[in-house]
Amino acid sequence: MKVFVLFVAIAVAAWQCHGSDHGHEYQIFPLRMKTGHGGHYIPEVSCQSWRLGVEAHNVIDWKTVPLDCEGYIGNYILGDQYRSDSKTVAREAYYYAKTLNITAKDIWVFDVDETTLSNLPYYADHGFGVEPYNATAFNEWVDLGEAPALPESQKLYKKLLSLGIKIVFLTGRPLEQKAVTVTNLKLAGYNKWEKIITKDTSIYHGKTAVTYKSTERKKLEEQGYKIIGNIGDQWSDILGTNTGDRTFKLPDPLYYIS
Amino acid sequence: MKVFVLFVAIAVAAWQCHGSDHGHEYQIFPLRMKTGHGGHYIPEVSCQSWRLGVEAHNVIDWKTVPLDCEGYIGNYILGDQYRSDSKTVAREAYYYAKTLNITAKDIWVFDVDETTLSNLPYYADHGFGVEPYNATAFNEWVDLGEAPALPESQKLYKKLLSLGIKIVFLTGRPLEQKAVTVTNLKLAGYNKWEKIITKDTSIYHGKTAVTYKSTERKKLEEQGYKIIGNIGDQWSDILGTNTGDRTFKLPDPLYYIS
Repeated sequence: MKVFVLFVAIAVAAWQCHGSDHGHEYQIFPLRMKTGHGGHYIPEVSCQSWRLGVEAHNVIDWKTVPLDCEGYIGNYILGDQYRSDSKTVAREAYYYAKTLNITAKDIWVFDVDETTLSNLPYYADHGFGVEPYNATAFNEWVDLGEAPALPESQKLYKKLLSLGIKIVFLTGRPLEQKAVTVTNLKLAGYNKWEKIITKDTSIYHGKTAVTYKSTERKKLEEQGYKIIGNIGDQWSDILGTNTGDRTFKLPDPLYYIS
Repeated sequence: MKVFVLFVAIAVAAWQCHGSDHGHEYQIFPLRMKTGHGGHYIPEVSCQSWRLGVEAHNVIDWKTVPLDCEGYIGNYILGDQYRSDSKTVAREAYYYAKTLNITAKDIWVFDVDETTLSNLPYYADHGFGVEPYNATAFNEWVDLGEAPALPESQKLYKKLLSLGIKIVFLTGRPLEQKAVTVTNLKLAGYNKWEKIITKDTSIYHGKTAVTYKSTERKKLEEQGYKIIGNIGDQWSDILGTNTGDRTFKLPDPLYYIS
């Protein structure tokens, strides 16, 4: 609870800071694109289209959030829409899981960042994805081990456990951050899992997330597990091979990992 | 032009009819779902989450638009957001195409309904996807051959042609509607193509759209074509095998084809 209060306080402070030069309630930054039948200019519309393009995997390989959309994305991610969008995905996942006959070898794969844990306190302080990725600063944040749970994902996690489904966390975080990730997951209320797989950079150096995650899922299947579900915030979590019987894409307009 | 004016007139008339019992500017119908941190109820938010879920392929196998979202979806599809969302997809497709070295065997696959041609005049008069699919009524509309072009798709089509890319239309419309589809495409300003492939129901009876389209794309590749791009409004247009080097998902919250 303390973590959540801190998180809201940081996020709101950062948001007010970013929005301080704007007087209206919603700070919306236009993309340089005309829209509408008459070609008239509606800025919020363009940023919403960009976000939809990201979620439907039309907009790919992007490095940063369009500068004009910082306000829009900040507003989205701190507001009700992100929560509702996440809830809809989690609900579909649970409805699907409920239809299955679960066996002891059935697993559900969860990604960690922006799927299980939220790095919003970090991103609220770093331009909501507008700033280029800063590995040093981000790793310092991760090493604090204070990332809060994503509430809709956590509800899904608990419901899947109650159905008898085993959970495997599969994250792009490196082996060196495994200990802090375990600590953080427990702090955030994730107390039970079959495995936590972090990235061995001596094996996967220079490989894409798709390759790393596909290979690790293949290993799980070779160990006799059956991946009945797979949830992540990046398309690289759910594309490739051995993706599982059904995949779920949580919203994430903050960054893209190929 | 006449077709477009008719289409707008029908659509607006149908919209006013559907919205006649509501006094406020935006008619939004709530999904039965609570959203937001305090669990308070924001209806537009829920329908937008449903639409995002559809586009990101989290919400699948749905039969009709949720009843509570008829107003929201009508508003979306007749407004600037649908146009802008389509434009964003088309723009990403063109940016990608521009990077390629085009050869004589390179093709781009277009679906027809809600990708190349719009059935909005029909759907505006049939509850914007809330009514169950009515094959008789829909086929009567198709047989008129008056579906207007989707403007952003048409711009993309022309730009791809100007890059030297050949166009193949691959549609789930049956062989019996091939003639009227050809007439309609020409009327709507699509005048050049390599092939139009309609569904031979004697071969594909009982098969899914994914199977039909995958098989036909495989045939194209066996004929020596290279599918450099593939655009559709249904996930079944772009999933399966032989999907092409890159796929693009246009928005469509009106119906789902598996």
